[in-house]
Amino acid sequence: MSEHSLIAWLRNRIQITDPAVLTGVGPDDCAILDASAMNRLAISTDMLVEGTHFDQNIPAQAIGFKAMAAAASDLAASGCRPRWALCALGLRRGLGTHWAREFGEGLISCAEDLDISLVGGDTTSTDGPVSICVTVCGQPLAGGPVTRGNAKPGDAILVTGSLGGSIQGRHLRPVVRLQEIEALLNLAQVNACMDITDGLALDLWRMMQESSTGAILEAEAIPLSPAALDLSKESGKSPLEHALRDGEDFELLVCLQQDDWPEVAGKWPEFLPNTPLTRIGEVTSEKSLWLAGKDGQRQELLPQGYEHDF
Amino acid sequence: MSEHSLIAWLRNRIQITDPAVLTGVGPDDCAILDASAMNRLAISTDMLVEGTHFDQNIPAQAIGFKAMAAAASDLAASGCRPRWALCALGLRRGLGTHWAREFGEGLISCAEDLDISLVGGDTTSTDGPVSICVTVCGQPLAGGPVTRGNAKPGDAILVTGSLGGSIQGRHLRPVVRLQEIEALLNLAQVNACMDITDGLALDLWRMMQESSTGAILEAEAIPLSPAALDLSKESGKSPLEHALRDGEDFELLVCLQQDDWPEVAGKWPEFLPNTPLTRIGEVTSEKSLWLAGKDGQRQELLPQGYEHDF
Repeated sequence: MSEHSLIAWLRNRIQITDPAVLTGVGPDDCAILDASAMNRLAISTDMLVEGTHFDQNIPAQAIGFKAMAAAASDLAASGCRPRWALCALGLRRGLGTHWAREFGEGLISCAEDLDISLVGGDTTSTDGPVSICVTVCGQPLAGGPVTRGNAKPGDAILVTGSLGGSIQGRHLRPVVRLQEIEALLNLAQVNACMDITDGLALDLWRMMQESSTGAILEAEAIPLSPAALDLSKESGKSPLEHALRDGEDFELLVCLQQDDWPEVAGKWPEFLPNTPLTRIGEVTSEKSLWLAGKDGQRQELLPQGYEHDF
Repeated sequence: MSEHSLIAWLRNRIQITDPAVLTGVGPDDCAILDASAMNRLAISTDMLVEGTHFDQNIPAQAIGFKAMAAAASDLAASGCRPRWALCALGLRRGLGTHWAREFGEGLISCAEDLDISLVGGDTTSTDGPVSICVTVCGQPLAGGPVTRGNAKPGDAILVTGSLGGSIQGRHLRPVVRLQEIEALLNLAQVNACMDITDGLALDLWRMMQESSTGAILEAEAIPLSPAALDLSKESGKSPLEHALRDGEDFELLVCLQQDDWPEVAGKWPEFLPNTPLTRIGEVTSEKSLWLAGKDGQRQELLPQGYEHDF
């Protein structure tokens, strides 16, 4: 399949219903979007590479879905609503038409779920692994945007969902926590937020570094995913280690104004009964990370998780 | 070098002077931009892959420069001024700190030349070739945007600069024809425009397809670059073949309202004396492509150039 025919196919496949998309879809021209109703534009770019983020044996449709979800998750975690996306694709020669179309179906399916219009893209061929870059833009939600650099000592540290073992399948179907961040911004003062992509321990460390703060987590409070429990039977690691270190949970890590937590905890089940929201610790002015056990004993929490080394 | 330290370095290296950049730089959070003065947002994404767009022996700084220029050229060719950029980078393991920083220097140097702020990015590691995705956004120039799908029978077909043989070096230092498109939009009715990246013959064919038109080019009029002349001594191809088929010229291919050409031709030297602007043919209602020789004889022009096959 040539570049032209892939783009022609995508153009026919996509129904853009957003009246703000003036021209778009495909690498042929740049997309022109009506931004007159936007005050602030949120934009983020996210790259996934075969061999690092997914294996050759993963179905193309799942890869497309994941690429869109991972990029949208970045915006949601910043307190913004994704609206438009572009996808650049480096396709391994020989993969063929079927792969590219299945990939496109997954990409569009996730975009449709989140009410995102795919407005542009680029395709190129490569002899190496497939690489995918999705750029998403949108605008801050009411109460947003939120950065990861503004956590305050005393803040309650929360996570959505449960953590660890995403490699067993969840990493291919990340749930974008858009409704959750919208509800949190609605209910409380959110001081900092990010999505957990490289493991709780490492991402929390980054957030605390950016905020010039530290944290103490309660080991017992950290919500363990069924996959973390399952995986620990074979891995020789505890479920807690999986929850602390495994990558690609795509759950929200949130620092909430201390006083707001009781009200949020009380009201949450009305808002989003199907998403667990758990207080796992507290931000400290002292800059190190600690993990406290049931007995009150602390151990230092090392910032280890999934690292991209060059 | 870890992802964190590359981003920390970029953040320190970049001086953002655009007051509309509210937060930005790095993958840590999404960038938040003040779009209140923007009516229409132009956005485009462009991927370059090692082995396809550049070789391992190319200095990292040149690759960074080219990546930014190629993406900015997409916007310029659509009649838009680039303003903000994001760069996602898949780095081959083992390339190391020095490479990444040199790449960053090239990227920033081109961005500074064009008054573009680098507001975000992402880095990941890969075992395969380096892949780079630059997304650029901005806004239409006065008289813009321009698509490639609106050429009209009778339009004068123009190109900036000279064509062919960019592999001899020019492909690493693309000149973004921003002043040129601004001048053209100022002087005349530009019906269609694109940048020539996969060769004049193939890109003209794409433009004519999108416009449901054809074209006749005058072989003698096509401006041959010194590199095309030089390369033809070894390649066994004529300089004209290089000008028609070689990729990565990054020159503008423009369809101008027929009646406007004499005035544009007359005034051009005052505007941009250093950029040749040449009329190379005419748009036709008949949908095929023809190349006319000095003797008036026509031959069909096949849409061959640089193709990305999957």
